[in-house]
Amino acid sequence: MPIQTLAQAAARLSRRIDQLARVSDERGATTRTFMSPAMRRANAVVGGWMRQAGLQVRVDAAGNLVGRREGPAKAARTLLLGSHLDTVRDAGRFDGVLGVLLPIAALEFLRDRGVRLPFAVEVLGFSEEEGVRFSSAYLGSKGYVGELKKADLALRDAEGISVGEVLSQAARGRFSLPAPAHLRRELAGYLEVHIEQGPVLEARHLAVGVVSAIAGQTRARVRFVGKAGHAGTTPMALRLDSLAGAAQFIGAVEALAGAQAPLVATVGRIAVRPGAANVIPAETELSLDVRHPLDAGRLAALARIRASGRAIAKARGLSFSLEVIQDNAAVACSGELTSLLERSVRRVQGRCLSLASGAGHDGVIVSRLTPVAMLFVRCRNGLSHHPEEFVHPRDLAAALGVVVDFLGRMAEGGRP
Amino acid sequence: MPIQTLAQAAARLSRRIDQLARVSDERGATTRTFMSPAMRRANAVVGGWMRQAGLQVRVDAAGNLVGRREGPAKAARTLLLGSHLDTVRDAGRFDGVLGVLLPIAALEFLRDRGVRLPFAVEVLGFSEEEGVRFSSAYLGSKGYVGELKKADLALRDAEGISVGEVLSQAARGRFSLPAPAHLRRELAGYLEVHIEQGPVLEARHLAVGVVSAIAGQTRARVRFVGKAGHAGTTPMALRLDSLAGAAQFIGAVEALAGAQAPLVATVGRIAVRPGAANVIPAETELSLDVRHPLDAGRLAALARIRASGRAIAKARGLSFSLEVIQDNAAVACSGELTSLLERSVRRVQGRCLSLASGAGHDGVIVSRLTPVAMLFVRCRNGLSHHPEEFVHPRDLAAALGVVVDFLGRMAEGGRP
Repeated sequence: MPIQTLAQAAARLSRRIDQLARVSDERGATTRTFMSPAMRRANAVVGGWMRQAGLQVRVDAAGNLVGRREGPAKAARTLLLGSHLDTVRDAGRFDGVLGVLLPIAALEFLRDRGVRLPFAVEVLGFSEEEGVRFSSAYLGSKGYVGELKKADLALRDAEGISVGEVLSQAARGRFSLPAPAHLRRELAGYLEVHIEQGPVLEARHLAVGVVSAIAGQTRARVRFVGKAGHAGTTPMALRLDSLAGAAQFIGAVEALAGAQAPLVATVGRIAVRPGAANVIPAETELSLDVRHPLDAGRLAALARIRASGRAIAKARGLSFSLEVIQDNAAVACSGELTSLLERSVRRVQGRCLSLASGAGHDGVIVSRLTPVAMLFVRCRNGLSHHPEEFVHPRDLAAALGVVVDFLGRMAEGGRP
Repeated sequence: MPIQTLAQAAARLSRRIDQLARVSDERGATTRTFMSPAMRRANAVVGGWMRQAGLQVRVDAAGNLVGRREGPAKAARTLLLGSHLDTVRDAGRFDGVLGVLLPIAALEFLRDRGVRLPFAVEVLGFSEEEGVRFSSAYLGSKGYVGELKKADLALRDAEGISVGEVLSQAARGRFSLPAPAHLRRELAGYLEVHIEQGPVLEARHLAVGVVSAIAGQTRARVRFVGKAGHAGTTPMALRLDSLAGAAQFIGAVEALAGAQAPLVATVGRIAVRPGAANVIPAETELSLDVRHPLDAGRLAALARIRASGRAIAKARGLSFSLEVIQDNAAVACSGELTSLLERSVRRVQGRCLSLASGAGHDGVIVSRLTPVAMLFVRCRNGLSHHPEEFVHPRDLAAALGVVVDFLGRMAEGGRP
């Protein structure tokens, strides 16, 4: 095979992404859930491309596809590169897949050019990140880092089959909870390439950006309670309108987050009772989602939002509650790896934008084992989790160029 | 029977109200719907009390109970007094009933004292006001004033039975659309006594108040459309959040109405799409109910609300629509009758509060035939359409005193 240009490698990457989109549990749509038949076929297809890139391929006990190439010396550390191969229902082609196939393409490109890396590499295709089948995310990366727990094994899908049963069957009965794939000191870090799933890079006219941190997230249930009343017979001054209070709160949340970027805060659900056109709403319940790359930023915002809700309720004679139902800490990306990645980005596109990831990624879990870095790739209209999810081929080429450059810098720097 | 005091008459009124509450289509609750068995029994029971008060009793073609006493001269005009005998499901004891039984008690009281009125009276127990059985209100009063239309007869209940079939069966097949019960010139007006169904009299520590007008009402469907987006990956500045726009609108509606009493404006229903905690709402739809005793006030407010919604949407890059789905004009109460009624109220409780009725009443329909006046009676917590609906016996006595005084003034004034 002749030595490829970077553009040719990017074109082949693009074709492989299209090809993998057709590996699905559903006809006419891309859907691959944890340990499904399509996931086994995807592992076979991607495993073939890994072998073509000179990697040794295995599937681990949690269904993760692992392609490894040893370093020149036994003592060499291992650089991890990866993302997930499962998808949401009726998914796009890039979410997850990009972070598996792009490193394969980069390693293949370097191998073809005769570049020998002074460290071992492992390309990871995690078996589960989207949480579709078992309503619980990160089953794959948790298995890889040795954090899959008994409670995870007890989770059941819509048909009543448990995670434990699925994994045990795949292991022909010889399944036990997996240990971490590596010791911490054996690893040089983890790089995840992922589509942005947001509009920032597009707005800044940039193909790629470097992730500073994966935002922490708090989800809460907020309730305002007032008093029902006849919409015709209750004067405005005598109302205890829970929805009017909630509306003021939504405005306060928006204003607070708007003034404190990169804080984001969202009310995505709202429900009123009794919910009749001619009755003043007695109760309004709404969802609150608060994210910030720094835990301190998120928690300070939450405290201010809570105080604001209390003040609004007090002034209106309503009762107010804010119940936290989920609270995930932020994950900071590795300063060392990120600064290397930023240099690669500057080399390829002249400028480098640092941005936080508002969505969670496999890197959240892998960060418990080794420092992580993330490269975001622009996607059209910020659209994701949708068949129209799209990354321009030029942006694929840019991202590939960045990873190739990054691997070169890692090699030159004597690291790992 | 010895001559009663007003307090004794009020106590008997109270007992009758309790007794009528037990005439129901449902065991353990008060429910009487148009032409139901309980409505026939109610007509029989109330008809008995009418006869006891010296009235001649009939049930008209629309099922209305009519108790009439002729005046001393053939040419004397007729004063109408009434309200409705049907109820919502699991109703209170006073809504409607009060406006039928209180005039009977007043006429009986005057008769016992030997007071002879120089005009004819008709006490009306309308057969339908709540719109429960046929989802259409005022069937009784429409029948009385001759405004029952073919379209009304075609309405069907949950069992598929039409209004026409029900009325035809009651008339043993000899039913035809009823003509107006009276010529306009034969009438001296209509007085309706009703519980306030709101909190104003209670807040002002008043037993009764005089209604200035029955508010007009506009109902509209309001929609804000923006763009869905990931709650984690879409910065605040790049959002097109339909719910944030709708929240600002709700605040604007509340502020506008609050500054323009007696205007009331209510958002009682709200729904967002897609309605997930981690997705920015693409679409928000809400109900709007605007009422004002003057049509000009209501229409001006609606125009300002519409302009406000447009401005909010424009500033946020959202689309906005406001679709009017119901628009009822206001009904002004008769200046002449109302001023007489106010004098009676002042006599009984010292002060008179004039207030608009935010809810619709039979008077809306009767006003097409003759001028109307309305007396509101305080109810506890403004509560209505609920088994805990409550009017204090002292307030019943005050209202009875007002109507007795009003009838005396009508007689003295030579009117009608």
